[in-house]
Amino acid sequence: MIAAGFIAVDWGTTHRRAWHVAGGAAVPLLNDDRGILDIADFPAAVAEVRALAPGEAVLMAGMIGANRGWRDVPYVSAPATLAMVAAGVVWVESDIGIVPGVSFVDAAHADIMRGEEVQLLGACAAAAVECDGLVCHPGTHTKWVEMESGAIARFRTVMTGDVFAALAHRSILSDLLAYDAPVDDSFLAGVDHGLANADLTAELFAARTRVVLGKAAAAHAASYVSGLLIGSDVRIGLGRLRADVVPVLGAPGLTARFAAALTQAGRIAVQHDGDAAFIAGMIAIAAAL
Amino acid sequence: MIAAGFIAVDWGTTHRRAWHVAGGAAVPLLNDDRGILDIADFPAAVAEVRALAPGEAVLMAGMIGANRGWRDVPYVSAPATLAMVAAGVVWVESDIGIVPGVSFVDAAHADIMRGEEVQLLGACAAAAVECDGLVCHPGTHTKWVEMESGAIARFRTVMTGDVFAALAHRSILSDLLAYDAPVDDSFLAGVDHGLANADLTAELFAARTRVVLGKAAAAHAASYVSGLLIGSDVRIGLGRLRADVVPVLGAPGLTARFAAALTQAGRIAVQHDGDAAFIAGMIAIAAAL
Repeated sequence: MIAAGFIAVDWGTTHRRAWHVAGGAAVPLLNDDRGILDIADFPAAVAEVRALAPGEAVLMAGMIGANRGWRDVPYVSAPATLAMVAAGVVWVESDIGIVPGVSFVDAAHADIMRGEEVQLLGACAAAAVECDGLVCHPGTHTKWVEMESGAIARFRTVMTGDVFAALAHRSILSDLLAYDAPVDDSFLAGVDHGLANADLTAELFAARTRVVLGKAAAAHAASYVSGLLIGSDVRIGLGRLRADVVPVLGAPGLTARFAAALTQAGRIAVQHDGDAAFIAGMIAIAAAL
Repeated sequence: MIAAGFIAVDWGTTHRRAWHVAGGAAVPLLNDDRGILDIADFPAAVAEVRALAPGEAVLMAGMIGANRGWRDVPYVSAPATLAMVAAGVVWVESDIGIVPGVSFVDAAHADIMRGEEVQLLGACAAAAVECDGLVCHPGTHTKWVEMESGAIARFRTVMTGDVFAALAHRSILSDLLAYDAPVDDSFLAGVDHGLANADLTAELFAARTRVVLGKAAAAHAASYVSGLLIGSDVRIGLGRLRADVVPVLGAPGLTARFAAALTQAGRIAVQHDGDAAFIAGMIAIAAAL
């Protein structure tokens, strides 16, 4: 149902982006903040996207397929291959498809993703990352994914970016978290604490205490807290896994932060651009339809 | 500078409360939400309080003495006795005093409290709690305090209530955290995870995943998250300490939650009313002036 050219859409909670894909190349069409929470009329919002490349089919991924999106598309259970994800595409119209997310359940954990599966399977399909081993996908909700023979085998989510944003918005730390948070010595000190130390909700308060007692500068607290949360994220994500080299897949600003934390944890981090992986994934899924 | 009768004020970040204390008894005068963040004109706000018992001296504790309060009153360094706290009272006028907070610094930690010291020293002075051993003071910022020979010797803050409120206000969990969070089986399941498990930012996300995958009811997630954060708080607070009996001092609704979590951790929790301890503390400090 997908011809040589199509519109690939990454429609998340807070943003939507679209590319026109043809002949293996992708041209950006749209990048705005009309995420699913901002949409009341999905057919109209999709028609806007279609109008950018009239006559082309549309293939969408991300939260557009969630219960709060346009159509609740059932998750594909891990281990999930690219062929399984392609087989799970739901056609809202004959030429408008939504890619399913992936769920993982075992005795100890249950987890879900929507959108990241396209990047992960795309990076594997494009041979940008090894299709076996651990991949870090940082974000509002970081995904630590174990790939096995090209399938998404297991994964765990850590809500690092979401917790940072919530604390910055309204908590005793909000004043301090309004500062920039560069990757600097304060960030790395936070990473060290997060890697070594499980007392997250105590260490968060201590970031403020040190400022109040004059032991740290207010301008450094945001970097420290970012590092603390990301260090904690990396500690959880690495868990008991032996991974010497960890691909970090996503938006460049974020992958740089996580790469710095992984380096601090003694790993070799290799950054990969999430957009390129998304395009590769959508092309591979479209080819498998 | 304090006669037989005086006005005792507990002035926090978001609330202020006042009692008229005379002859060992306390009569409530005021309880409103005009915390220090809501006050632009401190002399006028204090005059309002004075007008409730004209001619009486005023003794205030809490964030009124913080850098964002009326007057930045220097912390007393732990180990801090009641006599040391009384000696640190700053007189803004000849009959208006502010009780200092307490700071604690060692090689690994730095911490501060403002207001809780009155309850802790008051409960000890009134012989309501042992003046040696661990005391739990739950709240927006829980304090775990080691008392030694009647002094506040060491303590650590865990920002449990603040994190819960921030997540409830704006995060992927905010819808779920709008439900009531009773102390029930879901709460205790969260406590167990918090006691056993250091992966807080992952377990928080999992609370939502279980709802999305139909493994838990949406109405139970708030109890679970409250339990998870409080269980984590108790794990941090107990640390390596051997404490079989733990006094829990504070507002009754909160002490009940922490007592349930401490029981789940195999401890004997004894709840104490924070207001009674505050009055006892202010009377003891006034007597020591």
